[in-house]
Amino acid sequence: MSDNQKIYVVGHKNPDTDSICSAIAYAELKRRITKETYEARRAGNVNEETQYVLDYFKVPAPELLESVVKTEEGKVSVILVDHNEVGQAVDGIKEAELLEIIDHHKIGDITTEAPIYFRNQPVGCTASIVYQMYEENNQEVSKEIAGLLCSAILSDTLMFRSPTCTPKDKEIAEKLAEIAQINVEEYAMAMFKAGSNLADKTPEEIFFQDFKKFTAGEVSFGVGQISSMAEDELFEIADRLKPYMPQALKEQGVDMIFFMLTDILSESTNLIYVGDKAEATIEKAYKISKEAGDYYKLAGVVSRKKQLIPFFMDVLQ
Amino acid sequence: MSDNQKIYVVGHKNPDTDSICSAIAYAELKRRITKETYEARRAGNVNEETQYVLDYFKVPAPELLESVVKTEEGKVSVILVDHNEVGQAVDGIKEAELLEIIDHHKIGDITTEAPIYFRNQPVGCTASIVYQMYEENNQEVSKEIAGLLCSAILSDTLMFRSPTCTPKDKEIAEKLAEIAQINVEEYAMAMFKAGSNLADKTPEEIFFQDFKKFTAGEVSFGVGQISSMAEDELFEIADRLKPYMPQALKEQGVDMIFFMLTDILSESTNLIYVGDKAEATIEKAYKISKEAGDYYKLAGVVSRKKQLIPFFMDVLQ
Repeated sequence: MSDNQKIYVVGHKNPDTDSICSAIAYAELKRRITKETYEARRAGNVNEETQYVLDYFKVPAPELLESVVKTEEGKVSVILVDHNEVGQAVDGIKEAELLEIIDHHKIGDITTEAPIYFRNQPVGCTASIVYQMYEENNQEVSKEIAGLLCSAILSDTLMFRSPTCTPKDKEIAEKLAEIAQINVEEYAMAMFKAGSNLADKTPEEIFFQDFKKFTAGEVSFGVGQISSMAEDELFEIADRLKPYMPQALKEQGVDMIFFMLTDILSESTNLIYVGDKAEATIEKAYKISKEAGDYYKLAGVVSRKKQLIPFFMDVLQ
Repeated sequence: MSDNQKIYVVGHKNPDTDSICSAIAYAELKRRITKETYEARRAGNVNEETQYVLDYFKVPAPELLESVVKTEEGKVSVILVDHNEVGQAVDGIKEAELLEIIDHHKIGDITTEAPIYFRNQPVGCTASIVYQMYEENNQEVSKEIAGLLCSAILSDTLMFRSPTCTPKDKEIAEKLAEIAQINVEEYAMAMFKAGSNLADKTPEEIFFQDFKKFTAGEVSFGVGQISSMAEDELFEIADRLKPYMPQALKEQGVDMIFFMLTDILSESTNLIYVGDKAEATIEKAYKISKEAGDYYKLAGVVSRKKQLIPFFMDVLQ
């Protein structure tokens, strides 16, 4: 079977655990309920946290999808999970045949020429929506799929601590944890630890563990995030990232870059940044001024999606 | 209760039967399943076809919503049905608090600052999605609501003749017709007849019965449509519209305007137009050249959404 008969299910670039696990689980569901050939793909490297999840449940990582540029054989068919912004999608997305979007973020700039299935729910994790779709289609969830979906929810909601977490996410994660036979607290601790174990990584690799681009009118910016249960570790990561940030600013072609170093236990974020208007943007968004040092401490802020992006968009638009 | 505590459910400007009826039915569902105050509104005049439907089922038309511009009291909260393009939405939409979108069109240019519920399904009518939501929430549909939803499906799918019509739309419409106690064929004929009875209307009023704006890159254009079961009537309408079109082009601030005069029985459209590049766009989109007269005959074309917009977008982007 030639490649162009397949339909790829793919998350965002610099994929996180939700983007990988929801792609795998949704491709599996679509294979079961239709006759088409759906395959999960990834739009970048598997990060340490996600690798831990895949190893734990003995599920191979999806193959890399470098681009969905139109070829002589025609358009590539894709379903996007966990994003709906062109800047976060696999290269060539505007030339692809976009069939569906399953997401839980703000409504972004992806447009289509014809009607498609777009399901965006304001829940904590795409995996929670994918689980609902298993239920709606009366499909059982295997131990492996339950493990992946549960991991994605724990990851996206910082083990239910993020304000993005809804009662639905928690309820679903607890059901899934039972099927996956894991103890939520112990498993999440180990998973987050694996995710913040960046000792062997270059600053660039750390940077791209979880980095997303956004546009607000004429301004473009990027926001990365690393979460940890240990504040010390976050300071170390910050020290390694800072020298790389100016280079990233140039290479990513954005006006500003922010990086959230999020302490899961104390529920706060140290925000480092680069770009001329970055300080002004932060100070306007949070109505704070900088005390000392080269970062801002944002008490109570843990969610990029809910506690950072909307404020920045408001300031920049 | 002050206006800003209400949540408005509203369809697109120049509302058609789906935009009015789905707004009424969805506001009713939301009132039942939540504690909030949802109210249906309309973003323009009720057209002849819709008035027939409202009169038949003795349901009052929603109040007019002129604008959702932010006031001193804060943002206006809205749910959009049957559209997801800024150009088709009520004035001030970018300043409103957009809570949900329920639609069945291509993915347009509306963006949000935070995650919202966006449900877009590639079915023939928003009313079909609203009916599914009644079912999902185990809510019974009253005779009146069934009548409105069924009318919207018959209208949008041209009584199941449009290629946008899916088996789901037909199945739902037939269920609803039973609850509403109508004979589908007879009722649809009368409804379409009311819709194309434009004798007392000015050209401007005819024009805005069903007119939508679109943007493709730098180009903006408008597409109107009137459907009828009698071809004669369509020629008469065309003769009355043509002199008004150049004025509409100026006033709407678009580059081209197309108007579809659709014969439901023969399943074809006579396309009239205005704007420098209109002819070139049509000829490139359909790979046809003009034979004679001042319109193009598009055999088999009845759906703006599925058989016109995607082709124009492709040519213009």
